[in-house]
Amino acid sequence: MLATGHRKAIAGSAVKTGSSALRPRASQRCSSVVTNASALKGKIKKVVLAYSGGLDTSIILKWLQDEYGCEVVTFTADLGQGEELEPARAKAEKMGIKQIYIDDLRETFVKDYVFPMFRANAQYEGLYLLGTSIARPLIAKRQIEIAKEVGADAVCHGATGKGNDQVRFEVSYYALKPDIKVIAPWREWTLSSRTEMIQYAETNGIPVPASKRGEAPYSMDANLLHISYEGNALEDPWVAPSESMFTRSVSPEQAPDKPTEIEIEFEKGNPVAIDGVKMSPATLLAKLNQLGGDNGIGRIDLVESRFVGMKSRGVYETPGGTILLMAHRGIESITLDRGESHLKDDLMPRYAELIYNGFWFSPEREALQTLIDKTQEYCTGTVRVKLYKGNVSITGRKSPYSLYDKMIASFEDDGGLYNQADAGGFIKLQALRLRTMGISRKQA
Amino acid sequence: MLATGHRKAIAGSAVKTGSSALRPRASQRCSSVVTNASALKGKIKKVVLAYSGGLDTSIILKWLQDEYGCEVVTFTADLGQGEELEPARAKAEKMGIKQIYIDDLRETFVKDYVFPMFRANAQYEGLYLLGTSIARPLIAKRQIEIAKEVGADAVCHGATGKGNDQVRFEVSYYALKPDIKVIAPWREWTLSSRTEMIQYAETNGIPVPASKRGEAPYSMDANLLHISYEGNALEDPWVAPSESMFTRSVSPEQAPDKPTEIEIEFEKGNPVAIDGVKMSPATLLAKLNQLGGDNGIGRIDLVESRFVGMKSRGVYETPGGTILLMAHRGIESITLDRGESHLKDDLMPRYAELIYNGFWFSPEREALQTLIDKTQEYCTGTVRVKLYKGNVSITGRKSPYSLYDKMIASFEDDGGLYNQADAGGFIKLQALRLRTMGISRKQA
Amino acid sequence: MLATGHRKAIAGSAVKTGSSALRPRASQRCSSVVTNASALKGKIKKVVLAYSGGLDTSIILKWLQDEYGCEVVTFTADLGQGEELEPARAKAEKMGIKQIYIDDLRETFVKDYVFPMFRANAQYEGLYLLGTSIARPLIAKRQIEIAKEVGADAVCHGATGKGNDQVRFEVSYYALKPDIKVIAPWREWTLSSRTEMIQYAETNGIPVPASKRGEAPYSMDANLLHISYEGNALEDPWVAPSESMFTRSVSPEQAPDKPTEIEIEFEKGNPVAIDGVKMSPATLLAKLNQLGGDNGIGRIDLVESRFVGMKSRGVYETPGGTILLMAHRGIESITLDRGESHLKDDLMPRYAELIYNGFWFSPEREALQTLIDKTQEYCTGTVRVKLYKGNVSITGRKSPYSLYDKMIASFEDDGGLYNQADAGGFIKLQALRLRTMGISRKQA
Amino acid sequence: MLATGHRKAIAGSAVKTGSSALRPRASQRCSSVVTNASALKGKIKKVVLAYSGGLDTSIILKWLQDEYGCEVVTFTADLGQGEELEPARAKAEKMGIKQIYIDDLRETFVKDYVFPMFRANAQYEGLYLLGTSIARPLIAKRQIEIAKEVGADAVCHGATGKGNDQVRFEVSYYALKPDIKVIAPWREWTLSSRTEMIQYAETNGIPVPASKRGEAPYSMDANLLHISYEGNALEDPWVAPSESMFTRSVSPEQAPDKPTEIEIEFEKGNPVAIDGVKMSPATLLAKLNQLGGDNGIGRIDLVESRFVGMKSRGVYETPGGTILLMAHRGIESITLDRGESHLKDDLMPRYAELIYNGFWFSPEREALQTLIDKTQEYCTGTVRVKLYKGNVSITGRKSPYSLYDKMIASFEDDGGLYNQADAGGFIKLQALRLRTMGISRKQA
Repeated sequence: MLATGHRKAIAGSAVKTGSSALRPRASQRCSSVVTNASALKGKIKKVVLAYSGGLDTSIILKWLQDEYGCEVVTFTADLGQGEELEPARAKAEKMGIKQIYIDDLRETFVKDYVFPMFRANAQYEGLYLLGTSIARPLIAKRQIEIAKEVGADAVCHGATGKGNDQVRFEVSYYALKPDIKVIAPWREWTLSSRTEMIQYAETNGIPVPASKRGEAPYSMDANLLHISYEGNALEDPWVAPSESMFTRSVSPEQAPDKPTEIEIEFEKGNPVAIDGVKMSPATLLAKLNQLGGDNGIGRIDLVESRFVGMKSRGVYETPGGTILLMAHRGIESITLDRGESHLKDDLMPRYAELIYNGFWFSPEREALQTLIDKTQEYCTGTVRVKLYKGNVSITGRKSPYSLYDKMIASFEDDGGLYNQADAGGFIKLQALRLRTMGISRKQA
Repeated sequence: MLATGHRKAIAGSAVKTGSSALRPRASQRCSSVVTNASALKGKIKKVVLAYSGGLDTSIILKWLQDEYGCEVVTFTADLGQGEELEPARAKAEKMGIKQIYIDDLRETFVKDYVFPMFRANAQYEGLYLLGTSIARPLIAKRQIEIAKEVGADAVCHGATGKGNDQVRFEVSYYALKPDIKVIAPWREWTLSSRTEMIQYAETNGIPVPASKRGEAPYSMDANLLHISYEGNALEDPWVAPSESMFTRSVSPEQAPDKPTEIEIEFEKGNPVAIDGVKMSPATLLAKLNQLGGDNGIGRIDLVESRFVGMKSRGVYETPGGTILLMAHRGIESITLDRGESHLKDDLMPRYAELIYNGFWFSPEREALQTLIDKTQEYCTGTVRVKLYKGNVSITGRKSPYSLYDKMIASFEDDGGLYNQADAGGFIKLQALRLRTMGISRKQA
Repeated sequence: MLATGHRKAIAGSAVKTGSSALRPRASQRCSSVVTNASALKGKIKKVVLAYSGGLDTSIILKWLQDEYGCEVVTFTADLGQGEELEPARAKAEKMGIKQIYIDDLRETFVKDYVFPMFRANAQYEGLYLLGTSIARPLIAKRQIEIAKEVGADAVCHGATGKGNDQVRFEVSYYALKPDIKVIAPWREWTLSSRTEMIQYAETNGIPVPASKRGEAPYSMDANLLHISYEGNALEDPWVAPSESMFTRSVSPEQAPDKPTEIEIEFEKGNPVAIDGVKMSPATLLAKLNQLGGDNGIGRIDLVESRFVGMKSRGVYETPGGTILLMAHRGIESITLDRGESHLKDDLMPRYAELIYNGFWFSPEREALQTLIDKTQEYCTGTVRVKLYKGNVSITGRKSPYSLYDKMIASFEDDGGLYNQADAGGFIKLQALRLRTMGISRKQA
Repeated sequence: MLATGHRKAIAGSAVKTGSSALRPRASQRCSSVVTNASALKGKIKKVVLAYSGGLDTSIILKWLQDEYGCEVVTFTADLGQGEELEPARAKAEKMGIKQIYIDDLRETFVKDYVFPMFRANAQYEGLYLLGTSIARPLIAKRQIEIAKEVGADAVCHGATGKGNDQVRFEVSYYALKPDIKVIAPWREWTLSSRTEMIQYAETNGIPVPASKRGEAPYSMDANLLHISYEGNALEDPWVAPSESMFTRSVSPEQAPDKPTEIEIEFEKGNPVAIDGVKMSPATLLAKLNQLGGDNGIGRIDLVESRFVGMKSRGVYETPGGTILLMAHRGIESITLDRGESHLKDDLMPRYAELIYNGFWFSPEREALQTLIDKTQEYCTGTVRVKLYKGNVSITGRKSPYSLYDKMIASFEDDGGLYNQADAGGFIKLQALRLRTMGISRKQA
């Protein structure tokens, strides 16, 4: 069971819930909406919709049928967001959908997306673990595969017109199928308020849960790596989020008074076992989520720079990822040579930015990945971490390929590899250029 | 008072205490020792020694007098290591020293070394806050100044022959005075065990404290930014350090059950006030040390890659610095433009490596510093942080120059700067090269 | 006189001539054109137009008067494109313009834009000297200054909708005056062919030169740094350009059979004299253009990656710039320390990309510039170059700050700074990590 | 036949000829020489010497026999330096050598060292094509292989104690066989002048050619990629080299008055054919050398920053490499996506520096190589270059994977991939952060 723990309410994976996104300036958008929709109208035969089963994507589903008059294929993915997916099938059927895809992508997600990214120690702007960013390319990829299978000529997503996700989805679509047509309802339709949305839903027989009638305090996005919160109640960056918002972790204050210590085993940069128990990637990450969430680990509150040009405030819970990052740095610290390790560090911000901006399926991300993966060949061993009230502390690391050699690093006799006298020559040559410069620039 | 709190025993600033450093392979070193010492012997008239007043530098002092037969000038610096300095004067006088320099460099240290480095968010290998690395250039600089004042032709430090500090000292010396002569006793002398050291001390009337007679469990280095531990008891990276080792912080477990919340005010990237109280740089850092130490903040245990080529295990306490880094990232998150912020992130590892390797006084570090400082012109505002059992959490940030604009980042009407329809064009052009590539590489 | 030599026909600075740019797909653009124009129509009171006096910007001038019904202020800049500017005044007056700005910006252009860029050795994609890119920010800056002076609320440029220049102009406008309104006629109007353009001109009494009636073989852009050609006749990258196209240089084949040798003097990274004769920046660059053009220097033919997403073929003549780059590298080679020089080399592609993409007025370009300028403090001395049939060869360099020290670099006795024995220790420590790795990875 | 053309006198591959290298300061070195030699004396059983057959390595051979009293195995490599190798066998036999290795490594050299490096467009300090740097790792690798085959415990090279080559050899040795013993005679022996060297040779029956009796005007190093000159006559960087020095190319002035045009075919980034004729790597490079040398191509005169800390003046002839670099950039310009191409450009200086410094066999060079090679998968097609009196001009490029799409880059109707209206949105979002900044920083 891939429990993600401490969950109260989980958003769909492919749509931001939350309502205030509904008010683009109608006056500005009107004509282009008409243009765009009408430009493609009648030209689209079949569209694959990233469908969560929730209110917003249900409205989109209906709107596609109405506006585009085309056949809709729904695709609902389990990326570990913690929702039941079968209700989505029932809803889609009720709306007349013939081709319904519901896929459990959790293992793929963790193995082929999350783990490669953690091999790079990726953090955007020094802190963000890219939990939302890394899920979008997989959803997009599967949508395109389905489009090919069912002969659809278009795809559609439920991301708003102000965020990064629209870019991540669409850049991925285009990279994987350059001739695909893309429908982005939030940038197109004329529904310009939550009231209009709900009215549209009711008019079209789409059930509106009570909880969706008012203004949502924030939008959320969840998957096996993280859950994010943004918007409305979080808009003032001087105001801390309410404790009641969090769903995947207890606060450090509420976490147990006793530390938990675990051992994580790595092979070629990937975690493969906890406390000696081998686990599949998704199972392992779910286990780390449980452990981290229980110990108040992985909350972060930040203001980030969106690719579309504005700053945005986001709060994230990434319990397992936070442990994993620390542990991975730990195993790297004894198995990676300085040259490869510093090269990775220098390139990490660029790699993280590529993922954040939606360029997972770009040749430069792929080239960087080959470099990163090359450095992980001997990144094998075990790290012991202590989890305690929000802290992840490394308390031990060992590896058959350890480069930390007691004989060298200690002050003991080193058996010949290191001779203190060598340091004198080393320093002299390191300083030579600076001495020359000092003389030259003083003389003149 | 610049208390650094929670201190039990503090090492001198310019020498690593600890004894096993005393056993270079005599067979290998012998001849070069003789060579080197004899090469300069009789050629040196006056040497400025970085003198802590402790056992090791007292032995060095005597050894210089004996081996080099030259006049010794002692220089003892207060960098906030938490030791009384006046005993050093008495000891030096007793050993016949005529020119004794004792300088309080705490404000200079924090203002001109620590703060510039924190403006860069520097972390070596992702974690280490460079507490030792940043102190060496200042000590070296002052030694060279004194050498010029007193007409000395040589300088001498107490760093061992296996570490980074010898490089940091000597590269700095040479950069600042290319023709200076450098004496590095640990690479030169024939004292090859702690027993021989103590024997040498006793023979020469240097008092040996009881605590120094046995093997020290680890060597330490302390200043206002941090305290470090390495060697002996820490050599096995699979074994966690003993709780009794730590001197500057309580453990998270022992920290108060109630969080402490403070507000840190920044001007142009530097912290200038805590909770509205303006403080000098050193006072402010000491205050952060106190707050951090009390709350179990800033311990780190890592294996790092030394510049001289081997891996080394170090444990550090940096309570104030850990808070400062987080807070600085917080104020940057709302005041730095994405372009400058990502540029800084990309260059940070290189900047940190330069400092770690001892190249503070290099033209490339200085060029990077101008770049970093340029980005800090508007890095002004206030950050609220919560300190709790090892955790530093940002709970608020505000600035007169905030780039986070509610009107833009929220989903509300934005008054014109952001138009959702623009995103469509933005994405299309971002994806164009990937679409072209997809078509081209498939066709062929 | 700032002659640029070998010129046959020179395009205006702020508009690409050439005709095929006139055929955007009407069907796609129609509605958004209407939208955009009508959205601002009636809302703009006064616009500052970058006006070359040529056919295209004259049509734009008239179109602005007709479509926007606003007052137009013309701005014509001399950036060394080699055209008479006074005819532009007469034309503007004839079209009823009251406020006409004609500025000689050549010295500013070279001193504050070209030279800073050459201090960085900037080349986009390894080869392109950024001749067009660097001119756009200055034109934009002056337009915004004029807008402020005359109280205009909008600016307008004549760059097409497929190129980089639209980005360079508009990003600069917005950076300098965030609330400015921007009119980009080529993306807006419904003129969809050269025939329609000419018809529009004739209908409105705008004189159409005979040479503009047919399809132009390529579009051009010229200023004191370079002249560029692209489009139409150059579209097939397998076909070399016709010799008759070039205007600023003879071909290497036609250049003199005897080499020309000159000495260029630099101060802080900027050229200040040729053969001992001090010159102003623009005069000096014009002189280098003459010398380079006479000797067949500075032609380049390449396919580049545009910021807007497609590849584009461009042919450039940059005679003086080509000499300057080589000479600057020459003076740097003896005056820059390795550390600063390699740092610059590492950052150059990023700096060049920023300029190419239009981000001259971005904080990251400015931060990089401070870094670059810091490295040029001692970049002073003289370089001798030989010019011969397309070749620029350095034949000598000297400087009062030279870091090339005969005593060190030669195999002679070095007086102490370099001791061969030091190399042994240097190498041993450089190799230590690799030896450790070799042992570790083999063992396991 | 792998002719390298225009050759007059060619130096051995593993030793710098030239004589002034013979004068390290005896006084400084004496003791360490004694130390080092004696430390290993009696401990070495068999050494593999990189033996060119020339005077210097013959002296080394004898010196090894005398000083170390160990068995010497000679290894002579053909890397295309243009010398007969069989005389080396005769000389070695005469000196009593039992195990003599003479290997033709030309194909390996070009295929596995030169071509990978050219896939990266590597240039050190903007200009140097790394001709010497790239040969050293191969020689070292083969030496280590032979050492393993013959059971030798040491290797020996003939590089001097002031240059980069000693580092390149020794770092490679240690990386490939961490426990190897290294003998560097130039840093060890007491021969401190050319006179002493010649005396030693004559005393020991080593023939001294007349040309070696006087002071050589410069030292040289040659292989199939380049020939280098440095030292003595070249020491003053203000004085151009004599025309008589060059051996592999005519001067541009002496080159034919008619251009030569050739087509070079690439597969995955490697040249595979010239004018439709498929060739092996070494054959192809030799052919390019002939073509380049005939047309006065590939001379460069520069001052470079050595890894050991000083500046050095070098003159190089790299005729084929100069053509290859330009042609490779040409094929990349139409086949590499902007993302991968700019990533490569950003990393190139670092990659080049690694090779220059001798870190070919480092994990970071290997990781970078995987990245570079990944980008070359579609780097296939044909480039036409014109060679004329020192100039290499691209006159055409084509590829089945071309990303240059007439339909997009031209101003013609583009069939939908590019819509001019998209540029408006693209620019708006690109400028958004700068507008926000402009507002924010002005307000405050």
